[in-house]
Amino acid sequence: MRDEASVLFANDAFYEAFRQRDLETMDKLWARKRPIACTHPGWRTLIGREEVMESWAGILGNPGSPAITCRNAIAFVDGDSAFVTCYEAVGGNVLAATNIFVLEEGQWRLVHHQAGPCELPLSALDDAAEPGAIQ
Amino acid sequence: MRDEASVLFANDAFYEAFRQRDLETMDKLWARKRPIACTHPGWRTLIGREEVMESWAGILGNPGSPAITCRNAIAFVDGDSAFVTCYEAVGGNVLAATNIFVLEEGQWRLVHHQAGPCELPLSALDDAAEPGAIQ
Repeated sequence: MRDEASVLFANDAFYEAFRQRDLETMDKLWARKRPIACTHPGWRTLIGREEVMESWAGILGNPGSPAITCRNAIAFVDGDSAFVTCYEAVGGNVLAATNIFVLEEGQWRLVHHQAGPCELPLSALDDAAEPGAIQ
Repeated sequence: MRDEASVLFANDAFYEAFRQRDLETMDKLWARKRPIACTHPGWRTLIGREEVMESWAGILGNPGSPAITCRNAIAFVDGDSAFVTCYEAVGGNVLAATNIFVLEEGQWRLVHHQAGPCELPLSALDDAAEPGAIQ
């Protein structure tokens, strides 16, 4: 698989775990050998696996969390590091997101995620039927 | 210089160029050999040097732009790639930011910047007198 495709595959897996509220898979998608960080929309930046995973436990365990789909993902790969820019469609709103990955044991794993509000209307995004946004 | 220190130095240079409205320096701080991206607060994500630099020309050329200082910067380095998480104090508000760097010709250069609103009050941040936030 080309690098970009394998990074986008890991990015899709992240949003699939998010959508499925699958904390076990979410945990596996984040790096184990590097320090990690996460900036949820509006939150302070969480640093370290304990804080980050505690936040995902709260978010994925909340039945009131709206559905999420990833749109317009673009991968930027540089050796064993990569980042993806994309948009998140969440309950009719659009967030802009950055996901940073490193190659660990042959797998692209997340080391950082940031998402924040974006002025784009939902209608400006690619169709949710793209590979990365199966609902 | 240790890797983390050299990345934080590049991060400081970014905010210094931002504060000084120095477009020429800002241009030099962004990678030339890799594709770049930038997500200003609320904006759609800009892709490619032309779009990104056009945005900086607009922002740095606007005399109404509020002053900015960088606080609580933390560098995450992995070989020739790195990212920094930090906060931006802008006109009494706090933004959370991610800056991604790659090593190009011995220099850490930006490949991506994202900033978005953060719930933290200004009083929760480190003092602006830290090395990265000289006003």
